[in-house]
Amino acid sequence: MSTKDEFLAEAADLLGERGFTTDTEFVTPWLTDWRGRFTGNALALASPASTQEVADFVKVCAKHLVPIVPQGGNSGMSGGATPDESGDAVILSLRRMDSVRGFDVDARQITCDAGLILQTLHETVEAKDLRFPLTLGGKGSATVGGLISTNAGGTQVLRHGSMRAQVLGIEAVMADGTVFESLRPLKKDNRGFDLKQLLIGSEGTLGIVTAATLRLLPALADRAVLWAGVGDIRDARKLLLHSERVAGDALEGFEVMPRHSLEAVIAHNPNARSPLQESHEWNALIELTADASGAEALPALAQSLLESAFEEGLVADATIARNEAQAEAFWMLRDDIAPAERALGPAMQHDISVPVPDMAEFVADAVPKVEKAFPGSRAVAFGHLGDGNVHFHVLAPKGATPGEWENTDGKAISAFVHDEVTAWNGSISAEHGIGQLKRDELARLGDPAQLAIMRQVKQALDPQGLLNPGKLVPLETMPEHL
Amino acid sequence: MSTKDEFLAEAADLLGERGFTTDTEFVTPWLTDWRGRFTGNALALASPASTQEVADFVKVCAKHLVPIVPQGGNSGMSGGATPDESGDAVILSLRRMDSVRGFDVDARQITCDAGLILQTLHETVEAKDLRFPLTLGGKGSATVGGLISTNAGGTQVLRHGSMRAQVLGIEAVMADGTVFESLRPLKKDNRGFDLKQLLIGSEGTLGIVTAATLRLLPALADRAVLWAGVGDIRDARKLLLHSERVAGDALEGFEVMPRHSLEAVIAHNPNARSPLQESHEWNALIELTADASGAEALPALAQSLLESAFEEGLVADATIARNEAQAEAFWMLRDDIAPAERALGPAMQHDISVPVPDMAEFVADAVPKVEKAFPGSRAVAFGHLGDGNVHFHVLAPKGATPGEWENTDGKAISAFVHDEVTAWNGSISAEHGIGQLKRDELARLGDPAQLAIMRQVKQALDPQGLLNPGKLVPLETMPEHL
Repeated sequence: MSTKDEFLAEAADLLGERGFTTDTEFVTPWLTDWRGRFTGNALALASPASTQEVADFVKVCAKHLVPIVPQGGNSGMSGGATPDESGDAVILSLRRMDSVRGFDVDARQITCDAGLILQTLHETVEAKDLRFPLTLGGKGSATVGGLISTNAGGTQVLRHGSMRAQVLGIEAVMADGTVFESLRPLKKDNRGFDLKQLLIGSEGTLGIVTAATLRLLPALADRAVLWAGVGDIRDARKLLLHSERVAGDALEGFEVMPRHSLEAVIAHNPNARSPLQESHEWNALIELTADASGAEALPALAQSLLESAFEEGLVADATIARNEAQAEAFWMLRDDIAPAERALGPAMQHDISVPVPDMAEFVADAVPKVEKAFPGSRAVAFGHLGDGNVHFHVLAPKGATPGEWENTDGKAISAFVHDEVTAWNGSISAEHGIGQLKRDELARLGDPAQLAIMRQVKQALDPQGLLNPGKLVPLETMPEHL
Repeated sequence: MSTKDEFLAEAADLLGERGFTTDTEFVTPWLTDWRGRFTGNALALASPASTQEVADFVKVCAKHLVPIVPQGGNSGMSGGATPDESGDAVILSLRRMDSVRGFDVDARQITCDAGLILQTLHETVEAKDLRFPLTLGGKGSATVGGLISTNAGGTQVLRHGSMRAQVLGIEAVMADGTVFESLRPLKKDNRGFDLKQLLIGSEGTLGIVTAATLRLLPALADRAVLWAGVGDIRDARKLLLHSERVAGDALEGFEVMPRHSLEAVIAHNPNARSPLQESHEWNALIELTADASGAEALPALAQSLLESAFEEGLVADATIARNEAQAEAFWMLRDDIAPAERALGPAMQHDISVPVPDMAEFVADAVPKVEKAFPGSRAVAFGHLGDGNVHFHVLAPKGATPGEWENTDGKAISAFVHDEVTAWNGSISAEHGIGQLKRDELARLGDPAQLAIMRQVKQALDPQGLLNPGKLVPLETMPEHL
């Protein structure tokens, strides 16, 4: 028996029929990322049912030097869960592990398997008048393990932080099959390096997250959603600072979109209406929220925020959603930008951040620069101004050939945008991670000192390079695999 | 010239007279930790004036294999900044680097050198109507770098988190002299492992923190300080949950102390008065705070918290401080526990945590167990119930010989307490770190898997074992030093 056959036999024996398959019918759907940008090959699909099975399976892989690509809901944005084309690796799906292990309503903590889907998590905690303060478009497929491995963001980061801030404890299987377990959350624990933090956001390259304990918040009792028109992105920044001052912790979201995006949404979605009569260069969507302890004061707070913003000349026009339906309608305008912009033709999308105080200046500077360097293109920035994170889309000139444009001018545009971001001390990946999509750009633009330290850590914790090879920061020299 | 003389000559040449000395008059004060538990020896005291000097000095040390003990205010609780007795190491003091590098009032961020003293930081930001939400007893000497390296806690962790939560970016010099720089804070950045998190709390064993960017909050506009008497530690826990529900984010502190501690304070401090007429088995000190946006609602919130607690039968008696002077007096009772308990005779002190939901049960269980196992001793738990962190003091029986008792029964008591904490999935160091004080207990009780991973990381980032040797998790095999 070849070593490959030996591996397959041992793995099948360990995980059983439901847990291990080489049948292309079952494997193929997971070989392509959901945006359809990357397609790879795999030796097999492993779906262990428990942490112990994950650990035992990793040991079998380590013994035979079979690389492992961990996968959650396969809804990542950077191809981080898609194997390469070699077909050497197995996909390790965590989807079968989707139980809630423990739920302490009083302490507002839930412990769940890595395969639990975000939407299910939301529903589970909402049934107990609690909420999990992170959400995103892919919530119907994204898993807790994937959210942790990519340190996912969303529209509530301004107030509640990204996934890292929600994680109280994790369990993970390391490259040698060791189980790292720190699920019982200690609010204070100073017994050495916080290894949990190292695993969060490591995209499955240092360990495979198998479970987590997450913090929860009291259910929202009320929200107030405001829409404001401003003349300039710098005014939007002033309005953000003003909102922080007036609303304090009640400020949960602050999103911006340019005139172009709002018009695109209205053209694209027949149900969309502009909240304001006049058109403005920039629009801000502001959400204030309160749990039971602050609900009574919320309407007055929203009113006072708006009035003081008018008084100080910070807004050209503004309105407060009259009811929940209108609040939803305001948010739909924001959520529809990506599909509406996509409907306009090919575009290069960039998920970038710069230091929060600099974002307005960055947008004001970079948009005309890009449009000048690439005549006919149009740059559009929208999103989380309060986080210093915008989605920076550059639309192809009219008449560009889709497919071809992305690989020629599109590539040059991305490099240009990433260069600009780097010059502003920013990040070429604010919330979507590196995966394989941005791996080479990270190698090109990342701080060499930081890249070297990352490689040292990767080398120490996965010396055989078995965990998610070719993603994020690959080892300097790749060891031989099966 | 011997290699030692060569090292001394190169270091003196690099750092100059103000930056490098072997004069015992200057070196000796820094050889003993402030609690006087550990005294070591050192080859020299280095006090670089800039990050570049730190980096260059570390390179000289690496060349000659001279170990380095980084030191901030020398106010640590676990001997982490005190060299061992060999005299092989140099002390690297960050105290000369105490500048504010940048202060963005709008963005509420400050960037400062590692040697800036906490009290100076407080004063600097308060002058601009901001506050830094972490404080502790040693604030007059503790430095920003030391607070980061030990992930310091304090009484505001309940609401604002420990030092980790305040750090937006850091700069550090690694063991080979590489400068790790991520000072420009990006609120969102998913470009790989969050190395900053690895350095926070690593007690100078992975890198030397030279600067940091910290988050700030709006100045407090008002606070309400409540004192409640309850019959049982479990009732205190119920009151905590109730306070969280009613006060939400306004709840900034929740401290508990047993009758014994309050009586000790009153006996020790002639100015201390009990806030309540009757004596209660347990006392809770509750602080609610508000910035300008919530100040108006605060008195009513405190009143309603108290009234509902009475209605639900959660408190035996309670009162709200009438004014700031009385609020200070309430807090003095809490702050004086440690000296008051110390005045009663020798005691073993333990800085422990268990999962927050379990702390009340743990105290109820462990106190009688310890007192039974060690007849005549008295166990007292007080502190941060809301963080699952109490200071667990065990007083010697009357007539015990100080000095001798600590090394005999005292040692056995500490091992007993640490065993109990470990059985409850707790931490033997909640906020004070490991240093040299708890190094052997960590090796004895720590999870072997986690200790192994920590050693792998240490080995990868400091293969020569030059950074703070003998602290936290020493390398398996110590390399030869100069």
